[in-house]
Amino acid sequence: MFYHDDELQFEVEVEEPDPRFAKLLQQAIGGAEGEMRVALQYMFQAFAVPAEKDEIRRFLMETATEELGHIEMLATAVSKNLEGASEEARESAREDPIIDEMMRTGQPRQALSAGLHAMPVDSNGAPFTGNYVVASGNLAADMYANVMAESTGRVLATRLYEFTDDPGMKDMLEYLIARDTMHQNQWHAALEDLGEHRPVPASFDQEQENQEYNYSFMSTAREERADPKRPWTQGEAPDGKGEFSYTPQQPGGGAPDLKETIDEMYNEVQ
Amino acid sequence: MFYHDDELQFEVEVEEPDPRFAKLLQQAIGGAEGEMRVALQYMFQAFAVPAEKDEIRRFLMETATEELGHIEMLATAVSKNLEGASEEARESAREDPIIDEMMRTGQPRQALSAGLHAMPVDSNGAPFTGNYVVASGNLAADMYANVMAESTGRVLATRLYEFTDDPGMKDMLEYLIARDTMHQNQWHAALEDLGEHRPVPASFDQEQENQEYNYSFMSTAREERADPKRPWTQGEAPDGKGEFSYTPQQPGGGAPDLKETIDEMYNEVQ
Amino acid sequence: MFYHDDELQFEVEVEEPDPRFAKLLQQAIGGAEGEMRVALQYMFQAFAVPAEKDEIRRFLMETATEELGHIEMLATAVSKNLEGASEEARESAREDPIIDEMMRTGQPRQALSAGLHAMPVDSNGAPFTGNYVVASGNLAADMYANVMAESTGRVLATRLYEFTDDPGMKDMLEYLIARDTMHQNQWHAALEDLGEHRPVPASFDQEQENQEYNYSFMSTAREERADPKRPWTQGEAPDGKGEFSYTPQQPGGGAPDLKETIDEMYNEVQ
Amino acid sequence: MFYHDDELQFEVEVEEPDPRFAKLLQQAIGGAEGEMRVALQYMFQAFAVPAEKDEIRRFLMETATEELGHIEMLATAVSKNLEGASEEARESAREDPIIDEMMRTGQPRQALSAGLHAMPVDSNGAPFTGNYVVASGNLAADMYANVMAESTGRVLATRLYEFTDDPGMKDMLEYLIARDTMHQNQWHAALEDLGEHRPVPASFDQEQENQEYNYSFMSTAREERADPKRPWTQGEAPDGKGEFSYTPQQPGGGAPDLKETIDEMYNEVQ
Amino acid sequence: MFYHDDELQFEVEVEEPDPRFAKLLQQAIGGAEGEMRVALQYMFQAFAVPAEKDEIRRFLMETATEELGHIEMLATAVSKNLEGASEEARESAREDPIIDEMMRTGQPRQALSAGLHAMPVDSNGAPFTGNYVVASGNLAADMYANVMAESTGRVLATRLYEFTDDPGMKDMLEYLIARDTMHQNQWHAALEDLGEHRPVPASFDQEQENQEYNYSFMSTAREERADPKRPWTQGEAPDGKGEFSYTPQQPGGGAPDLKETIDEMYNEVQ
Amino acid sequence: MFYHDDELQFEVEVEEPDPRFAKLLQQAIGGAEGEMRVALQYMFQAFAVPAEKDEIRRFLMETATEELGHIEMLATAVSKNLEGASEEARESAREDPIIDEMMRTGQPRQALSAGLHAMPVDSNGAPFTGNYVVASGNLAADMYANVMAESTGRVLATRLYEFTDDPGMKDMLEYLIARDTMHQNQWHAALEDLGEHRPVPASFDQEQENQEYNYSFMSTAREERADPKRPWTQGEAPDGKGEFSYTPQQPGGGAPDLKETIDEMYNEVQ
Repeated sequence: MFYHDDELQFEVEVEEPDPRFAKLLQQAIGGAEGEMRVALQYMFQAFAVPAEKDEIRRFLMETATEELGHIEMLATAVSKNLEGASEEARESAREDPIIDEMMRTGQPRQALSAGLHAMPVDSNGAPFTGNYVVASGNLAADMYANVMAESTGRVLATRLYEFTDDPGMKDMLEYLIARDTMHQNQWHAALEDLGEHRPVPASFDQEQENQEYNYSFMSTAREERADPKRPWTQGEAPDGKGEFSYTPQQPGGGAPDLKETIDEMYNEVQ
Repeated sequence: MFYHDDELQFEVEVEEPDPRFAKLLQQAIGGAEGEMRVALQYMFQAFAVPAEKDEIRRFLMETATEELGHIEMLATAVSKNLEGASEEARESAREDPIIDEMMRTGQPRQALSAGLHAMPVDSNGAPFTGNYVVASGNLAADMYANVMAESTGRVLATRLYEFTDDPGMKDMLEYLIARDTMHQNQWHAALEDLGEHRPVPASFDQEQENQEYNYSFMSTAREERADPKRPWTQGEAPDGKGEFSYTPQQPGGGAPDLKETIDEMYNEVQ
Repeated sequence: MFYHDDELQFEVEVEEPDPRFAKLLQQAIGGAEGEMRVALQYMFQAFAVPAEKDEIRRFLMETATEELGHIEMLATAVSKNLEGASEEARESAREDPIIDEMMRTGQPRQALSAGLHAMPVDSNGAPFTGNYVVASGNLAADMYANVMAESTGRVLATRLYEFTDDPGMKDMLEYLIARDTMHQNQWHAALEDLGEHRPVPASFDQEQENQEYNYSFMSTAREERADPKRPWTQGEAPDGKGEFSYTPQQPGGGAPDLKETIDEMYNEVQ
Repeated sequence: MFYHDDELQFEVEVEEPDPRFAKLLQQAIGGAEGEMRVALQYMFQAFAVPAEKDEIRRFLMETATEELGHIEMLATAVSKNLEGASEEARESAREDPIIDEMMRTGQPRQALSAGLHAMPVDSNGAPFTGNYVVASGNLAADMYANVMAESTGRVLATRLYEFTDDPGMKDMLEYLIARDTMHQNQWHAALEDLGEHRPVPASFDQEQENQEYNYSFMSTAREERADPKRPWTQGEAPDGKGEFSYTPQQPGGGAPDLKETIDEMYNEVQ
Repeated sequence: MFYHDDELQFEVEVEEPDPRFAKLLQQAIGGAEGEMRVALQYMFQAFAVPAEKDEIRRFLMETATEELGHIEMLATAVSKNLEGASEEARESAREDPIIDEMMRTGQPRQALSAGLHAMPVDSNGAPFTGNYVVASGNLAADMYANVMAESTGRVLATRLYEFTDDPGMKDMLEYLIARDTMHQNQWHAALEDLGEHRPVPASFDQEQENQEYNYSFMSTAREERADPKRPWTQGEAPDGKGEFSYTPQQPGGGAPDLKETIDEMYNEVQ
Repeated sequence: MFYHDDELQFEVEVEEPDPRFAKLLQQAIGGAEGEMRVALQYMFQAFAVPAEKDEIRRFLMETATEELGHIEMLATAVSKNLEGASEEARESAREDPIIDEMMRTGQPRQALSAGLHAMPVDSNGAPFTGNYVVASGNLAADMYANVMAESTGRVLATRLYEFTDDPGMKDMLEYLIARDTMHQNQWHAALEDLGEHRPVPASFDQEQENQEYNYSFMSTAREERADPKRPWTQGEAPDGKGEFSYTPQQPGGGAPDLKETIDEMYNEVQ
């Protein structure tokens, strides 16, 4: 079960509200590379861990819990970037330069649906979706999903870093980028522990897979190309279980030979 | 630009139609772990490669093109698993055991919307979405997304393998599992080439990130826990740029201190 | 910021795994009436509260935090309802009666994508979406959204209660139904505190609204109907600011009189 | 069944086209707080009413029908806010100041997909979804959903009112705000009639719910907090069936104790 | 504006409730080929018609209004197919054969979210979406969208017809199929009136389009194929403005030659 | 199976990067009228064709393959419209006028998620969805879906043509508009071959449909209107199988007469 206290995990200050940056920050909240995704992803991964691996469960759940606090930080940052002028300084909402810029270039729903606060949507305005969450039940696959999530998340954070001059926002992003560095590393460390580069899932008996096509790069170029002699066409494969080769042609399995569908479908292909 | 020929990439045969398996195969077509995702993901990644890296562009695009052929194979497999009895053998669609089972336990839209053929949806019936596609512009992040996609994809294929006895379907899956083995390995090989385990993005000056929290595992347990001394709390970090440590407490950044919103939002928190 | 400990908030036991019930439980996790929705809804509402109302912020955030623990309980319940027979008791996944029933009538993705665990989707298999979250910035509107969420949530829980005989599941639902009773009551208590039945938002000057149509029930029946003399056509309105009346006709505002669109849109209505 | 006539329900005039306002109005058409939602919500609620309650069916359906007319009004308002200059006054679409501003800050699809007309999307551009519609079969739950819909809808309309100076748009919004006032009141009146504040669903035997946790506010604060003595921690609960209390601790139900998943899932947690 | 009266547009009777058919009927309510789509599509098309074409506006709006009544009929049909046995005939919901079959093979949300009534979702359980609605502003394009909608709608209705033996359901579908016949024909009649087969949009000056590739079938076969001499490779084109030809090769426009992205994107393609 | 070569299908040049145009082009990639839709639509239609109609399969698949090349062209165009100034010409991303305009008015995800490249989303930022794909199994219905897709696609392309002055973009669009002209014509030619205007599906025995309402325009006007004597109320119907008539009244089928739902649903309509 979960607990909360009143503090943010790290300080969130905004010197100059910037409604465009409020729009961009949404990507880090409700976007494919955002904190809602990782919080829920690590949580659902933890939910699937059997009792005898409670160390793994804690590993995942402690980081899930940390990410919940990042959503809170970013939502606070959005609100602070949308703070309008005081009432004396303007006559109406439309005359507030922050609000005006917001309605022009921002995400209208931050104002219309949320009263100038954060939303569970991305920077294009598309809602967060459970589709972003990867929790496969297979720990290695999950770890790769996590490395990917933290890699794209850190790329996002560094791009955001380039789009602000606000010292408070810079501080916050330097912290979040640091945490992404750690999280990338911790999932890698878990992968090393599992035996990196093994084929996922490792427990599937590899003798059952087709032995002709499991370590060969297959060219689909229209005109046959010579082996480009790249790290993926020659040498030992990273999983240590095969030798790369190069196949200039796709095997070909005959034309699809579907029967006509039963009449009651009214398919009438002619 | 693209080309096509009449053959499937690999043979697709079904001895005994099985409408439940037709439902399950949808996951490998339009699901988060499916072939539409990887085909489009590798394609959009290739679209972003600058001219001077055309070797990388080809690497991505050739595999994207291969995956298009896998969609074709799987769609053929769905149709063959839904082939009903001949008209003599039944009086109406409802009396066809395949169709009856299909309507009971399957995806009704395979019949109602597609006339007993494949759909761009997953095994739960949810439509394919562009949200599944990761093409970040950063090659290392993309490679991790690809390793993840092939890992979850191979897990899916091995699970499907357990749910069929049909020799034709077994053959097809043995081929697809082999290709997933290769694809996992080829993306790993590319990562090795880039310098594996570097923090993504590597070009962000790490001195800019917060130096206190970038290599420390942060516990969020309610009751303070001792360092569990796991590979992610001690030793050198996989990126080779830091030493892991353990932080039993979140830093804490003060309570969020939002101002009241401008009146024109009618927020009325009290 | 958030914390976690190892215990569930309340005991979750399953005597007899039931994969159909695992399917139904998804509605309480990732559905419109589910725990992901309320956890995130109360959280985003709390994120928008200004500093001077920290009592309200805590009120919302403490309950958000509780709901996170309910997701954890329900995900545990799903996993336990999908536990297959031991390996000795079957020859393959298909021969396990739990798994067989699961693949026939359940949500295939619980197996195919999550390895027999919970997913962030609803009982129809549709993914959780940020669209479910209501956090308007206006506390009264939010409280009504919360009463609604807990009312539909409790209706869902009571319906689930009718579809299981398992004593462990009954216990868990009796607990969750009790919490829904409390949560309905606590949001009502907050509404009473705000001044129940006031028009939301109350700070909009009601003299600005159209005075002819603000307290009249408008019939849209094709054939004019007499006043049905119901509580919404006569007597004082619940907000205490007007008297109900009955309008048998819609006012009518003339036909829409759009100009032709500029040529460059190629609209060609004729 | 339904009927239509040529008139709008209320006059819709626009003095000065304003493409930014056309963007904002989309929220009131296809957004979570919009008219498509309430029209369909009340309609689906009405569809579920048994014959003997035809008075309730009419109540819901008459208002559903009214809301259809509001979609029509708002779509007309969008078109009028996007009316470009006459052909003489410009040389190309790009030189029309309305169109230029539209393409810069608006919703491109209003131009590209709809030829400068309304779309069934919200102000962020996300499509309307059936997920917004709440029709639970339980009338009290539905009434709370309706109060919520009209409360957030009226908040939206008052915010829109602040973002326009156009007298025609002001008139239209004054009318719509008035109707929202009435609709809030009429659903409240129905709730009073049902017996307000009863726990929903009232027919579930409350003795079946857990008696220890059904009227107690549960704190999830990390550090134990004293009872804040607020209206939701003491006194009679609004449903009149219990007395509020305060629980400083979550009960705790032991750690989740999942078994390992069957091998055929290839879960490999280690 | 709209009106309603108490009657259904056409009789809806169900002799034997059939929960599987209730599942299938959802496709005709909230699916891509369903009545919500056509009702809203014709409505949004009508909303865009300028005043001087009010005959067209009425044509579209009258049919939109009819389709609203079809949603009502189908929702009634769903409810009647889910009517459970009387209380005397069973001990609990689970023992009602209708309800049991419903929970096994149906859409759980019809029970869990709607209390055994219709939902705005399709037969796979995916929510209705505004994405289905086509209202382009161009009347000819809209008419083709309408012919398509009625064609796929009638295919759906005939398939549903094959999956029921209930005489009430047969009657209802015979009526709906008849209306689809009419609607297909009426949109065709409008197209004939506009000048069928003209290129849409007809007002775009065809001399501006590339004259080399506007009437030639372009083969993308990997191995060059001879002209198949089909109706689309020779003879006059249906629009009467060009002569079909056959191009065995795609033109080819050089490799894409993207520059490297600015550093601040951290793209690191190498 | 598919193949690729390095060239674009047609030249893509951009003289002056224009980030607003990059936003608009997304509609032609991932929008309802875009190239992802047609590529996948024709592909899924081809997947359903039985072996004996391989000519039809090729017809569909060759055009599907061509459309894949159009996605590639448009993605290249997006990247080129987002090319920033060289590093010497600016001090930071924010000072690059292209990037600044991009972040202000564009789609932030093109920068934040894709590093200034194309995304599988539409111009409003909503993700591509499998819902756009129509592949019904019935060839005539599919052909109408294709005519519609190419008609709305060509309308989109002509609108885009009005929003750019760039000669490279004009060239590209002139090519794409020409291809849309051809594709509209080719699907029409296929329809002529099938027997145009026949009711879809033609194989459903029309004697089974209701004979009273299958060729009559049904008015739903509130006040009875006289026959407007339009092409859809009189004369022979386009399918050649009936004579149009005019019905001023909807038939009326009695009020819906639902029973009360079983108690276990807790519906409590009163």
